[in-house]
Amino acid sequence: MAWLRTLCRVYRSSSSTSSWIMANRCPSTLSADMRFASFSSASTAYAGLGPTRPGVDKPRLVVLGTGWAGCRMMKGVDAGLYDIVCVSPRNHMVFTPLLASTCVGTLEFRSVAEPIGRIQPAISTAPGSYFFLASCTAVDPDEHTVQCETVTDQEGDKDSPEPWKFKLSYDKLVIAAGAEASTFGIHGVKEHAIFLREVHHAQEIRRRLLLNLMLSDVPGISEDEKKRLLHCVVIGGGPTGVEFSGELSDFIKKDVHDRYSHVKDYIHVTLIEANEILSSFDVRLRQYATKQLTKSGVHLVRGVVKDVLPEKVILNDGSEIPYGLLVWSTGVGPSPFVRSLEFPKSPGGRIGIDEWLRVPSMQDVFAIGDCSGFLESTGKPVLPALAQVAERQGKYLADLLNQIGKAGGGYANSAADIQLGDPFVYRHLGSMATVGRYKALVDLRQSKESKGLSLTGFVSWFIWRSAYLTRVISWRNRFYVAINWLTTFVFGRDISRI
Amino acid sequence: MAWLRTLCRVYRSSSSTSSWIMANRCPSTLSADMRFASFSSASTAYAGLGPTRPGVDKPRLVVLGTGWAGCRMMKGVDAGLYDIVCVSPRNHMVFTPLLASTCVGTLEFRSVAEPIGRIQPAISTAPGSYFFLASCTAVDPDEHTVQCETVTDQEGDKDSPEPWKFKLSYDKLVIAAGAEASTFGIHGVKEHAIFLREVHHAQEIRRRLLLNLMLSDVPGISEDEKKRLLHCVVIGGGPTGVEFSGELSDFIKKDVHDRYSHVKDYIHVTLIEANEILSSFDVRLRQYATKQLTKSGVHLVRGVVKDVLPEKVILNDGSEIPYGLLVWSTGVGPSPFVRSLEFPKSPGGRIGIDEWLRVPSMQDVFAIGDCSGFLESTGKPVLPALAQVAERQGKYLADLLNQIGKAGGGYANSAADIQLGDPFVYRHLGSMATVGRYKALVDLRQSKESKGLSLTGFVSWFIWRSAYLTRVISWRNRFYVAINWLTTFVFGRDISRI
Repeated sequence: MAWLRTLCRVYRSSSSTSSWIMANRCPSTLSADMRFASFSSASTAYAGLGPTRPGVDKPRLVVLGTGWAGCRMMKGVDAGLYDIVCVSPRNHMVFTPLLASTCVGTLEFRSVAEPIGRIQPAISTAPGSYFFLASCTAVDPDEHTVQCETVTDQEGDKDSPEPWKFKLSYDKLVIAAGAEASTFGIHGVKEHAIFLREVHHAQEIRRRLLLNLMLSDVPGISEDEKKRLLHCVVIGGGPTGVEFSGELSDFIKKDVHDRYSHVKDYIHVTLIEANEILSSFDVRLRQYATKQLTKSGVHLVRGVVKDVLPEKVILNDGSEIPYGLLVWSTGVGPSPFVRSLEFPKSPGGRIGIDEWLRVPSMQDVFAIGDCSGFLESTGKPVLPALAQVAERQGKYLADLLNQIGKAGGGYANSAADIQLGDPFVYRHLGSMATVGRYKALVDLRQSKESKGLSLTGFVSWFIWRSAYLTRVISWRNRFYVAINWLTTFVFGRDISRI
Repeated sequence: MAWLRTLCRVYRSSSSTSSWIMANRCPSTLSADMRFASFSSASTAYAGLGPTRPGVDKPRLVVLGTGWAGCRMMKGVDAGLYDIVCVSPRNHMVFTPLLASTCVGTLEFRSVAEPIGRIQPAISTAPGSYFFLASCTAVDPDEHTVQCETVTDQEGDKDSPEPWKFKLSYDKLVIAAGAEASTFGIHGVKEHAIFLREVHHAQEIRRRLLLNLMLSDVPGISEDEKKRLLHCVVIGGGPTGVEFSGELSDFIKKDVHDRYSHVKDYIHVTLIEANEILSSFDVRLRQYATKQLTKSGVHLVRGVVKDVLPEKVILNDGSEIPYGLLVWSTGVGPSPFVRSLEFPKSPGGRIGIDEWLRVPSMQDVFAIGDCSGFLESTGKPVLPALAQVAERQGKYLADLLNQIGKAGGGYANSAADIQLGDPFVYRHLGSMATVGRYKALVDLRQSKESKGLSLTGFVSWFIWRSAYLTRVISWRNRFYVAINWLTTFVFGRDISRI
């Protein structure tokens, strides 16, 4: 028992040490320096990372968010030039174009999630680089600080510590905090519908779908309730909604027919869209998609949702659509965090940026991805909220920051005289969407108005799969995506409800 | 909009149809027959499956549970002889010996879960066979019925229907409902510790571990709290506790050191056991395990837990052990369902069975696996709660039921004159456990007292992996387990917290 007593003693004695968490990390450079002094704001003192010291520390690049924009940026930034500190409520990037495939088990969840440490290894290993599981709550551009709060609100976190606040000084700040799903103020959407933006959404959809399939087979359920439980309603006919409907009808055609043969005639998919489905695609592709979805048994309904109740959706014309699973994918809008920032804004309420992706009128602040939009004064249109745009901006900004860093402008307020080079220009490479049954659309036009190649059918589907397979970031996930596709083809989708 | 209106009309009109869910399934054989009459008990009428009609329907085999015993039994039963109806709160079997590996990402969760429809395909496809996501609440052996209630209490089920009750008539009943983790009445175990018996336990452990690793790196946490968060405490030194500790120390040595290098010196594992670890193994193997675990940095503590508080464990000698993750694996005892049955009981409170695995004094009821034990009157000892025992009993019972079915004794109360053949005899084939670092123990002795071969080290580890790889039930999962092992070796474990 001596062992145990020693152990307990170690724990007890440690209570008296400093409350600075970094104190033990790099004793050679960090002892008793400015970085570990508390911040004192109006009334509260927070722990955090204090300002860097030019010549002693590397400049600190603080990145808010781990989406397409932030991750592509961090991947490209030279970790020899900057200490990278990433703040995000999730420690991984989601490969969103393949997320719909995970809802029915065509792909597994981990195959589309890339831990940030695999994207930018310095974050796991460099002494001054960190990942903080937190959300940013405020930015002070004059003081060059952000205020953050830890995130512990997910399921199963009951015994985890209460969230706490901390502050970070930055030399450069990149806001890549993304957008949030639009609900258009419709009542009940957040309570009853499932979005399709994070891995946990896909997990929830898969669990719900399998639960409904199983419950609808149990004695004592009415015919009505059975039909309701097995009615999957998708709101929004953009690429996400269409791809999810396609995956769902594939799942029904192949897996439900084989493995839930008792209820196979009860399950249906309805896709509700206020306008046309895939409105950004070529008209020929839209027609093809409509035909293919209808052929796969997806009911296409044109309508506007007025209200969402626990078991039914009410449309504007008063009709009621009962559902057992409701997936909401009607695009995105500014998040509460973006709305709370007193920054210049673009049309649509995003953070306003100039052509070098800087937030004008403040030093060292950049914004990329869905949270940002060109200011009206730039004369450029706000770019669509696409992975493609975010990724391109991330790459551009990484190069820009590397250039600034190399020119000695990495520290706060030191980049004023540095030549920035060419501004960011977005060239659309085309759009893709799969509609299930080994069919997809590929639209290679540069804009809605221009002419260009558009493809449909199996060849497109093959291009779709190959293109995404090569774009998945790590070799590990590339391997797993290929293996998942192979096993789904050979063995069918996994229906364990875990 | 005509489309939509038709759709809504279909939904509305269906409300008036019968509330019998099976009514539409097999119209040729099932219309208006006895199977669809309601059951009326004292005061309530339940839906369900009524008695089978000899000559018209196949005899119905009702199986409670989807663990090792129930699944092995269903796999072996001839679906041509019986309609199989399985009732369980989960739709898959868990390959428990590999569950500890999933907690740290050596294996993925789905690689150790086998959907019941893949084990016994008839359940998905045969008209009279079903899987019901439910728990059994009562057995009436005289009436030959079980009463069940649907299960919808998992996370994310908020909008799912209220649970409802139903009744099933059986011709043969196999109770394979398993046991529950023993807490020895210690306060706080259920609230704060995580068991390691289901996939969702492993998921919770993985999420908690990654959360604690990330939170402990955030500014504002005290040294003390950081040590607490990163202290993983395992209670119980049986194979599960030892294997989990070994996996955890592997994870720390390889992955935490590379990917959480900021906090790598703070994370520790303590294994608390009241007696000796791996008490069922050969003394030489026990010593080897102790040495290996200590070498891997696992603190072995001998102690008895008195109380579990939200952030610390209190031992009998008054010492306090703070923890950030607490895993409880101290063996199993009878579940509330088994305790509630007014059946003959074995020593230890399990369902008492004779040498043919029947529950004596009632017709057509069998019990296998951890929920059952030989009655004292058989003169045989209660077998240990091992996968090996459960699997062997499942196989034996499948053969026995096939034999009874072939002899025409499949229906209720019709097997009295059938010769049952040899009773069930258990021969222990040996035990295995891994201790991490490519090391394992293999004990091929038939019992604690007998002599026999025992192996340690890398060869054992290789045997351990090969043996389990061949025992994983489906080819799909065998393939995935091999692929997971390969990618863990090449790329390390996945640390996305999804």
